[in-house]
Amino acid sequence: MYLRDGKLPFDAMHEECGVFGVYSNETRDVANTVYYGLFALQHRGQESGGIAVAYANKIQYYKGMGLIPEVFAGGRLAALPEGDIAIGHVRYSTTGASLAANAQPVVFTGKCGKTALAHNGNLTNTRELREELIRDNAVFQTSIDSEVMALLINKYSDGDIVKGVLAACERIRGSYALVIMTTDKLIAVRDPYGIRPLVLGKALDDVVVASETCALDAVGAVYTRDVRPGEVVVIDSQGEHSYFLDTAGKKPAACIFEYVYFARPDSVIDGLSVYAARKESGRILARNSKIEADIVSGVPDSGLVAARGYSEESGIPCVEALAKNRYVGRTFIQPDQHMRENSVSVKLNALRANIRGKRVIIIDDSIVRGTTSRKIVRLLREGGAKEVHMMACSPVVRHPCHLGIDIETYSQLIGANKSVEEIRQFIGADSLTYMTVDQLKEACRGARCGFCTGCFDGNYPYSLEDYREDKHKFE
Amino acid sequence: MYLRDGKLPFDAMHEECGVFGVYSNETRDVANTVYYGLFALQHRGQESGGIAVAYANKIQYYKGMGLIPEVFAGGRLAALPEGDIAIGHVRYSTTGASLAANAQPVVFTGKCGKTALAHNGNLTNTRELREELIRDNAVFQTSIDSEVMALLINKYSDGDIVKGVLAACERIRGSYALVIMTTDKLIAVRDPYGIRPLVLGKALDDVVVASETCALDAVGAVYTRDVRPGEVVVIDSQGEHSYFLDTAGKKPAACIFEYVYFARPDSVIDGLSVYAARKESGRILARNSKIEADIVSGVPDSGLVAARGYSEESGIPCVEALAKNRYVGRTFIQPDQHMRENSVSVKLNALRANIRGKRVIIIDDSIVRGTTSRKIVRLLREGGAKEVHMMACSPVVRHPCHLGIDIETYSQLIGANKSVEEIRQFIGADSLTYMTVDQLKEACRGARCGFCTGCFDGNYPYSLEDYREDKHKFE
Amino acid sequence: MYLRDGKLPFDAMHEECGVFGVYSNETRDVANTVYYGLFALQHRGQESGGIAVAYANKIQYYKGMGLIPEVFAGGRLAALPEGDIAIGHVRYSTTGASLAANAQPVVFTGKCGKTALAHNGNLTNTRELREELIRDNAVFQTSIDSEVMALLINKYSDGDIVKGVLAACERIRGSYALVIMTTDKLIAVRDPYGIRPLVLGKALDDVVVASETCALDAVGAVYTRDVRPGEVVVIDSQGEHSYFLDTAGKKPAACIFEYVYFARPDSVIDGLSVYAARKESGRILARNSKIEADIVSGVPDSGLVAARGYSEESGIPCVEALAKNRYVGRTFIQPDQHMRENSVSVKLNALRANIRGKRVIIIDDSIVRGTTSRKIVRLLREGGAKEVHMMACSPVVRHPCHLGIDIETYSQLIGANKSVEEIRQFIGADSLTYMTVDQLKEACRGARCGFCTGCFDGNYPYSLEDYREDKHKFE
Amino acid sequence: MYLRDGKLPFDAMHEECGVFGVYSNETRDVANTVYYGLFALQHRGQESGGIAVAYANKIQYYKGMGLIPEVFAGGRLAALPEGDIAIGHVRYSTTGASLAANAQPVVFTGKCGKTALAHNGNLTNTRELREELIRDNAVFQTSIDSEVMALLINKYSDGDIVKGVLAACERIRGSYALVIMTTDKLIAVRDPYGIRPLVLGKALDDVVVASETCALDAVGAVYTRDVRPGEVVVIDSQGEHSYFLDTAGKKPAACIFEYVYFARPDSVIDGLSVYAARKESGRILARNSKIEADIVSGVPDSGLVAARGYSEESGIPCVEALAKNRYVGRTFIQPDQHMRENSVSVKLNALRANIRGKRVIIIDDSIVRGTTSRKIVRLLREGGAKEVHMMACSPVVRHPCHLGIDIETYSQLIGANKSVEEIRQFIGADSLTYMTVDQLKEACRGARCGFCTGCFDGNYPYSLEDYREDKHKFE
Repeated sequence: MYLRDGKLPFDAMHEECGVFGVYSNETRDVANTVYYGLFALQHRGQESGGIAVAYANKIQYYKGMGLIPEVFAGGRLAALPEGDIAIGHVRYSTTGASLAANAQPVVFTGKCGKTALAHNGNLTNTRELREELIRDNAVFQTSIDSEVMALLINKYSDGDIVKGVLAACERIRGSYALVIMTTDKLIAVRDPYGIRPLVLGKALDDVVVASETCALDAVGAVYTRDVRPGEVVVIDSQGEHSYFLDTAGKKPAACIFEYVYFARPDSVIDGLSVYAARKESGRILARNSKIEADIVSGVPDSGLVAARGYSEESGIPCVEALAKNRYVGRTFIQPDQHMRENSVSVKLNALRANIRGKRVIIIDDSIVRGTTSRKIVRLLREGGAKEVHMMACSPVVRHPCHLGIDIETYSQLIGANKSVEEIRQFIGADSLTYMTVDQLKEACRGARCGFCTGCFDGNYPYSLEDYREDKHKFE
Repeated sequence: MYLRDGKLPFDAMHEECGVFGVYSNETRDVANTVYYGLFALQHRGQESGGIAVAYANKIQYYKGMGLIPEVFAGGRLAALPEGDIAIGHVRYSTTGASLAANAQPVVFTGKCGKTALAHNGNLTNTRELREELIRDNAVFQTSIDSEVMALLINKYSDGDIVKGVLAACERIRGSYALVIMTTDKLIAVRDPYGIRPLVLGKALDDVVVASETCALDAVGAVYTRDVRPGEVVVIDSQGEHSYFLDTAGKKPAACIFEYVYFARPDSVIDGLSVYAARKESGRILARNSKIEADIVSGVPDSGLVAARGYSEESGIPCVEALAKNRYVGRTFIQPDQHMRENSVSVKLNALRANIRGKRVIIIDDSIVRGTTSRKIVRLLREGGAKEVHMMACSPVVRHPCHLGIDIETYSQLIGANKSVEEIRQFIGADSLTYMTVDQLKEACRGARCGFCTGCFDGNYPYSLEDYREDKHKFE
Repeated sequence: MYLRDGKLPFDAMHEECGVFGVYSNETRDVANTVYYGLFALQHRGQESGGIAVAYANKIQYYKGMGLIPEVFAGGRLAALPEGDIAIGHVRYSTTGASLAANAQPVVFTGKCGKTALAHNGNLTNTRELREELIRDNAVFQTSIDSEVMALLINKYSDGDIVKGVLAACERIRGSYALVIMTTDKLIAVRDPYGIRPLVLGKALDDVVVASETCALDAVGAVYTRDVRPGEVVVIDSQGEHSYFLDTAGKKPAACIFEYVYFARPDSVIDGLSVYAARKESGRILARNSKIEADIVSGVPDSGLVAARGYSEESGIPCVEALAKNRYVGRTFIQPDQHMRENSVSVKLNALRANIRGKRVIIIDDSIVRGTTSRKIVRLLREGGAKEVHMMACSPVVRHPCHLGIDIETYSQLIGANKSVEEIRQFIGADSLTYMTVDQLKEACRGARCGFCTGCFDGNYPYSLEDYREDKHKFE
Repeated sequence: MYLRDGKLPFDAMHEECGVFGVYSNETRDVANTVYYGLFALQHRGQESGGIAVAYANKIQYYKGMGLIPEVFAGGRLAALPEGDIAIGHVRYSTTGASLAANAQPVVFTGKCGKTALAHNGNLTNTRELREELIRDNAVFQTSIDSEVMALLINKYSDGDIVKGVLAACERIRGSYALVIMTTDKLIAVRDPYGIRPLVLGKALDDVVVASETCALDAVGAVYTRDVRPGEVVVIDSQGEHSYFLDTAGKKPAACIFEYVYFARPDSVIDGLSVYAARKESGRILARNSKIEADIVSGVPDSGLVAARGYSEESGIPCVEALAKNRYVGRTFIQPDQHMRENSVSVKLNALRANIRGKRVIIIDDSIVRGTTSRKIVRLLREGGAKEVHMMACSPVVRHPCHLGIDIETYSQLIGANKSVEEIRQFIGADSLTYMTVDQLKEACRGARCGFCTGCFDGNYPYSLEDYREDKHKFE
């Protein structure tokens, strides 16, 4: 398992996917463009990846396990044909029986001919949809939601992919940022709440769609706009057309965790810079804090920006307390149990000279299981810190979310089971500060969109009931 | 590409698959049994393989590219759970865009719950079936016939797998030896003509089904009987039950090429030992030959037995003329064009001491493109043979067959384009002898089954028309 | 090639190696300790690595290409035996014919029995030593200096390894931090000038030696002291003993580039925190600068600390200007020439929201070839920066150094061929500021050691003449 | 471990190596020639391989673990430069700590400049030579004899490689077929007894040297002659020159096991076809046998030829009793202990139809540990054979030999510990027949060379005393 930052596996929220698509006005190496785009989205999924290319009424694809450069090493990128349209996907997932089969894009032949679909998000009513489709003679070859969506779109399409997409989206509940391709159309869809981000860009005459703007930058495309919540954008030889799903009674509810942790700091989502939101979080923490400290520091990499904001607001010097080993990756072996216990120390080391005798504020993006935080506190104390004050740039994570917390983690979600004081004792800090939901919203006030804050306060835009049964039944 | 014998790639008939299944009366390591069974069937397919295990209402599987030991190296066999039923598949295939996706078994969730299917054979009417199923809202995620069969079985099943199998088989045309598994049943099916072999065996209380008896031997199972043409054998907790497809007007027509080349010599198919059939072929060649020669020899490995039969009948000493490099395998690099030309010599070497100054009869199982034969003749002449008389243990291969000749090979099928004398000139032999169809049937007279000899005389038990269009449309 | 930071290959100084050793008072998994230690030193060498373990009068080892977790994946760490002493090595190197053969430690059997040696540094008189040893019947199986050292130590030892080390060190010139092991002794050597760092630590009763203190932290060892320039520390069952090489006329001259770029910020070398030196560099740059700017920023990762120091001193806000893709690694494919040109943009992206319309000071550790700097300037301008002022935390790199600049890079060393104004034009910045040698020394004034600043001012503690001929002859 | 034939690991004699060299009159892709040559010698060693190429006063090489196509996959063959001279090596070896380091050729820089050496054979006095060389300041980086030879040659050379070879050979005892290369000379050496084979060939103007003639055939070279026992052949721009070692009192004693098992049947050694010797062995067995049987059969592959000879002499029909799975290779997993017990059955299967109710003579090349034979007898009985008569085409293997039996095997050498009757009981055969030493010599009477039959009768041409101590000390 590849680790982002210095976090322990299963002690982080997990973003499920990144999507990318390109529509070119000439037949060219569109797979290369998708390759660069996916690589810029690698932080959204490190388990598997894939690229599908449409050319001459055909679709050819390759999917595999690993990081994008690994999946397409050994000539496998060059082996993809030139084409006019291409889409791609990176996936994060918990371990399972047949992981390779669950890689995306889903590529299939149906009423609209060759079709490919890549999905970021989670549906909450796949159980009933699966049962209905099975009654209707369908079979499922994977356990991923994207296959349900593919079959539903196909069923309603009558050979018209746009019709199929519009009708299928009326049936599905949950979050979805979709990129769909037939041999002559590229379609981008964002669910009515706009839960997952999706942006459009232009590079010369090509149209590009991606989960985050950092992927537009990576392929030299200029950001044009975010796909609107409930919008279906169709790009073909006639140009770009928009359709809208029924959003009656559905207020935009973009996932606020994108700003906290999921997205890259150089991305701009719904008009708000992720970097700016993180820095503002730090400022807000400072404004509301009475902690006296000598230095403020961030847990690399996602806590660093907030620490800077805290420092600017409070005047407390921002000084690195932790150094990260940049070579931490998937293949690291933990030779024995004793060492596994201490594995945070393989990734992070205290900068003793900076913290010795100091009262240290250490800021992390969020606290999920608490084990990483406990080890960080211990590292800092062993490194000589006089006091360790832990702060999270987000509220207490108390609720399950199909978007980011897998089941194994949920059972150990520290915020669902302990009070803040109990958590403080568990991690061994001198104090522990969380943001409130309102403070976090305040930090993200620049976004053109309302937010889902369900994992903090349980207010989801849709019910989670069937989702949970769903997972237990089909996984 | 892994090479059988000393043959050049694309200069051999290609068997498409081997299947294996086991039903155990206790939960145990059934995947291991399938592993050994598939390894014994490796000669039927070297491109990809897979094993699916049913346990506790679930099916878990692993499929991958390569030989069975490679697919399941690195702990991937041990990672499969214990179970009650398991099936597996080995596949030969021509190169294509997304080979891994085409590996079998096909595993899906449908009206009968978790289901897995492995198929040896080819259907001839998948085009119309696919179109019909697509009109009926189905989507296809691969280009293999087995997926069509899976969807058709599911459609007709109404939750009863046996009902689905029986109804689907009435709709499909072509050859099929099938092994199908739900979480409580193992089903073995042989098409009404019995084109592909399928045998049943017993090991203690377990029931085993396999393409060939050599796989029964490999797992310590005792051969009980061949599945009959048109028979559907269902094994479950109630025991073993047989159903029969409508075989009205369909005379058994087992593929005679199984005896010529596809099957292992230690297998017994429809009551006839493959070894015995090959030896008898040699005897018949001898009985009908007027060639005067000093020695008779076989092309390793499949021509060796016939050479022995020829020798016994004719009294001409059987002496090896060619030695084979046992390490020839998939990874051999042909560094330059010049060497590629001579690549037969990498695999085979003339035993000069045995052939110098001799009139040599050299027997191969069949002649497909003729290029291998030409190189063998040249090798023998350079090694000092005074005369080289080539004989094939089969008639001239003149007709396409979806069972064994891929399209690329067909266009270069030497028997379809040249007379025997022209072929002799092409390969440079002093004489060239083929068996007649009647002689080959005579050699195989011990089998309890009639034969398909379509690739020799064009008499197929079904039309090939739609098959050909099919392939061009969907591959 | 694995890339540190966002730098282009061949546009960075290259540290040649990291060494690690442990002497345990009981037979245990000492290889694990070395594994963790080397992983913490991975930034000093990513090409190859190795571990040798002494046990029961034997030495067993494994060496291979790649990062430490890759070299020891697949059970290769567990395959090493338990032992009493172990040493290890990580190596950076330019490409060459037989890289694997050049991995360290060098393990050999000679007058002192089984012996292993790991070396960080470069010798300048290996040509004459090799010639002398060859005249004396030696043969060389690699092209690395360490083999010369091993043969020389062996020759002078007469079976006493300490005697051999002391005598050999009198013969060799250049830089060397050595870790040597026989089956009963661990020896640590630092050359008379102390050019490369080497530290001692304690973990319970074990003695640990490493290139940097971050490796002590990684194995839970407490720093005891730096090995002194010219000191030979011998650890065996009798305890720890020190010998001293002749240092007459040799003033300590530790490589100052360790503080600029080579070492990890959490290490402390010769009493000075690398982090502190980098931050002080930023302060000094600020104190001497008249540039008016809106923000100051560092090139990730090595320029970040200096940017912070600059900000504190100048009051100009420290704001990130560049985001780094954390997944950049060895296997990234550059599919086409056009993209290769832009490959900095795969690794770095401008944080547009932070720089738009701003006058930006961007600080990098050093400028070697200038190509990376040019691309960074372009990225920032395209991202909307109004002015871009580039600053280097080090003087102009003007001179070759066997310690860190390989020959291919030297020919393109921009500071050796252009004036500062020409470099500014080449990189396209509005201004370009270097530190002076005195300023850099001032930043590092806390170290207990003088410095070698040869690559900046040509003042090396030894001649480079024979070194250069050497390399051309033997590589 | 790659298995030859159907034998169990450690139940076969092990050939230690194959060597190959080419001297070309023009600079060309000599590495390709060596690649094909080594592939034809793959049966002599499957553990590791290597190729070294001399060009422009340099030597470049690559060595690795695995079969030749594996070692040089991934572009590693193409990465070797064009050159004028090249040598290569394949190696069989027991498992050990640092196998890769023991791969050959040994490449070094010494008094004769760049030099490479590949060795087939074993020395018996390396202990004293190593000690002497170590006293003389040498160090050893591997545990292979070839390194001792390299250092000795270098020591005596005074810059003249031929002088060094001649002097070193006077010092070494044991078996050696050597191929040595400097940047302007190719040298082939066969020890005074001619224990290991070595042949010369010509391809256009190129000179080729190889362990067996099958490698000459593979590269299109014409056999010219065997290197004579005690001959040193030097090929350079002046042509070919021969020198002779002192062979006074040393009668040729070629290893007779080459004919029994080691060599390929299509090779000719010292004028005698290996195929012919094996067939004659079968005839001699028949002439001396009173066994009444219905069929005679060989254990594939090495017993097949002898079975044919037996049949011709006795008139008993030669019929295959065992079929071999051609896909048996290194990666086969034995999932459980039960199956490991039966692993012969994974590789071999009884041809029931051929043996049912029959009295079967089964011929193997030799019996080493007896475990394979025991399983073959059981396979045949379970397959229905009425009687099983085991015959070996060689005498009882009673004595250790550094040439072919590793230490682990020796302790279980069945012939050293049991009488023939006890062995018969152990393997469970109805009768057991070995050849006598005289009979085997009679079968090989056509060779131009006397034989070493030490492993059968203890008559070695040299003492084994120091050899044994040697191994225990240094391995």
